[in-house]
Formats: sequence, structure tokens, C-alpha cells
Amino acid sequence: METAVKESDRIIIGIDPGTNLMGYGILGIKSRKPFLIAMGVIDLHRLGDHYTRLGRIYERVSMLVEQYCPDEMAIEAPFFGKNVQSMLKLGRAQGVAMAAALSKQVPITEYEPRKIKQAITGNGAASKEQVKEMLRRILSISDAALLPQLDATDALGAALCHFYESSKPLAPKGASSWKDFIARNPNRVKT
Amino acid sequence: METAVKESDRIIIGIDPGTNLMGYGILGIKSRKPFLIAMGVIDLHRLGDHYTRLGRIYERVSMLVEQYCPDEMAIEAPFFGKNVQSMLKLGRAQGVAMAAALSKQVPITEYEPRKIKQAITGNGAASKEQVKEMLRRILSISDAALLPQLDATDALGAALCHFYESSKPLAPKGASSWKDFIARNPNRVKT
Repeated sequence: METAVKESDRIIIGIDPGTNLMGYGILGIKSRKPFLIAMGVIDLHRLGDHYTRLGRIYERVSMLVEQYCPDEMAIEAPFFGKNVQSMLKLGRAQGVAMAAALSKQVPITEYEPRKIKQAITGNGAASKEQVKEMLRRILSISDAALLPQLDATDALGAALCHFYESSKPLAPKGASSWKDFIARNPNRVKT
Repeated sequence: METAVKESDRIIIGIDPGTNLMGYGILGIKSRKPFLIAMGVIDLHRLGDHYTRLGRIYERVSMLVEQYCPDEMAIEAPFFGKNVQSMLKLGRAQGVAMAAALSKQVPITEYEPRKIKQAITGNGAASKEQVKEMLRRILSISDAALLPQLDATDALGAALCHFYESSKPLAPKGASSWKDFIARNPNRVKT
């Protein structure tokens, strides 16, 4: 794994932060091809206290950032469908994970679960199992033991989604999209 | 100020984390008497990006923790009355501030705004100005310039509230309150 890290052109850490389980996936990119470096799930259930859990998330993400020196962080971040209480807790879990990246100047991008599913499977409403199966194929993971828990798959999915999104051609400066660019520059469209 | 820190028996850092403004107050305790060491507000408005703001909160709280070596952290934490979007953002701001404390093993206690107002003024519905005025009197702050912004007053209020709460006599082990203790130990009540 050490060699895999050194040989990577770029490393993306994917995080799926929650107050019960925290998943992570480390994705290496070599010659524009993504591959799996590591993944795992941290079970926070046994740590009773809310602050102990937050402290563990911070500590664990800090360790991962130190160990793998990722260039970017991708976070799975649901925005809707929860009550204010659970959103506050989720925000805190995201916050401590983000702090671990921000303290090392690792830029963060967040993706909604639907966006991740769409990027990986082509279907925003895909099941976790479908996402897992696609990740296994895309990253050529033959060892089933490497995909033990669905939550780590979400984190790895966020990292892969970020790789796809950041590999898209960039729109010219000042334009928010190609459509926008074309609308503002009709003379540059060849017909 | 350096002397004030060294002479304190105990130091409490109060934080009022928000995504627009972050207030902090450093309270020293000497011979069971609280006094003001420092307070301030960090304006995050100019830092456009959400992550840059979170990074600044983490950085600033980390610096304060390093500078004043607080024994405890008290956070003003509203729990209700906001929508899920703002609660997620607030949770993140709280999370990065908490990470700065947790990484240095500083224990955290959170207090609702109502609880803080109650502890300082005796009225849970007190105005910010009333809280400010009471803090000025309790901490014998003659210099009005030391209380420049209401948000820092909230943070200092959280620290003072924590001092009051933690100075209350503790219930015996296993009992959640004196009432509970008495109910479970009727023979120990002198009549």
C-alpha cells in the first residue's frame, strides 16, 4: 500500500461522516485511472459520549490525512430529509472531519448521496448494493473482503464521484456552464 | 494578561460559534472568583467561502486553546427554532470549534442560550443588553471598550454559566439529584 501511495499522481480521501458510523475510502489516481488504496468503517456505537465520538472522528480523519497525504477530500453530505436535531449532529460530525482536512490545507468538496449514486451507477436512486457492485467493477476489486461494509462504500463512492467531477472539462472563466458560455458568446458558435 | 493566565486556578474558554460571527471569551478563576482575561469577535463575513470560514474558526479556536491552555470549554448551542439547512451549517461551525478543543483533550460542555441568560441574569428571556450589563457588573469590567460586541458577550456568558454550573455541589455518586438521593435513602434524612 505504501508503494501505491507513492506511485499515485493524486490521492482523494472520501469521507462519509455520521455520529454512529464513519466510513472512509482512499482512492489513488495513476495515469488518469482510479484505484483503491484503502477503505474502512469506524464504529462509533461503543463510544457512548457524543464528544468522545466527535473526538474519535477528528482523530481518525487526522491520522488518515497524515498517513495518505490526500490532495483532496470528498464528503458525502445529505442536505435534506432529516429533522433539525439530527442535522445539527450530522453537521458536527462533518465539521470535525472537515477540521482535520482544513488544518492540513486539504480542499474539500461535498456531494449529495444522489449525485454520488448518479456518478457511479448512472442512476441517482440506485441501491447501496448497486453502488457497491459498480465500485467493485470500476476499481477491479476482486477481493470481496475489501468491500466489507456499505458505509465505507459510500465514502469510496464520494471519492470516485469527485474524481469524475473534477476530470470534466472546465468551462471558460466567468461562465458557469457551457450552456451559459454559448448564450453569452453566440458569435463563437459554429453553425 | 500573561500574569492573569498564570495566576488563575482554572481557565474556561467560552465559544459562541456561528458561520457569520464567532465570539470567544476567556474567563479566569482565582480563589473561586471569576474574572475576564480576554474576549473578542471574529468577523467571518468577508471570508466568502464556507470552508474558508470553517477553517478560520478551527484555526482561531486552536490558537486560543494553545495560548490560554483552558481547562474546559463552554459552547453556546441553540437547539431549536432553525431550519435544517441552518442547523447543518451551525453544526459544522460547532464541530470545527469542538475539534480544536478535542484535539487538546479539553472537555466540552454546551449550554442553551436560555440557560446562559438564566444563569447570568436570573431571567431566561433576558435581552442581550441585560446579559452584557450583568457580565460587566459580575466581572467588574469598568472599561466599556472591553465589551465591544454582543456576540463576544454570549461567549463570555457561556463561560461564566459553566463556572456557576460546575461550582454547584455535586449529588452523591449514583444519584441523579438530591431529590433522587433522598427518595432512595429515606433513613438518611433527619426529621
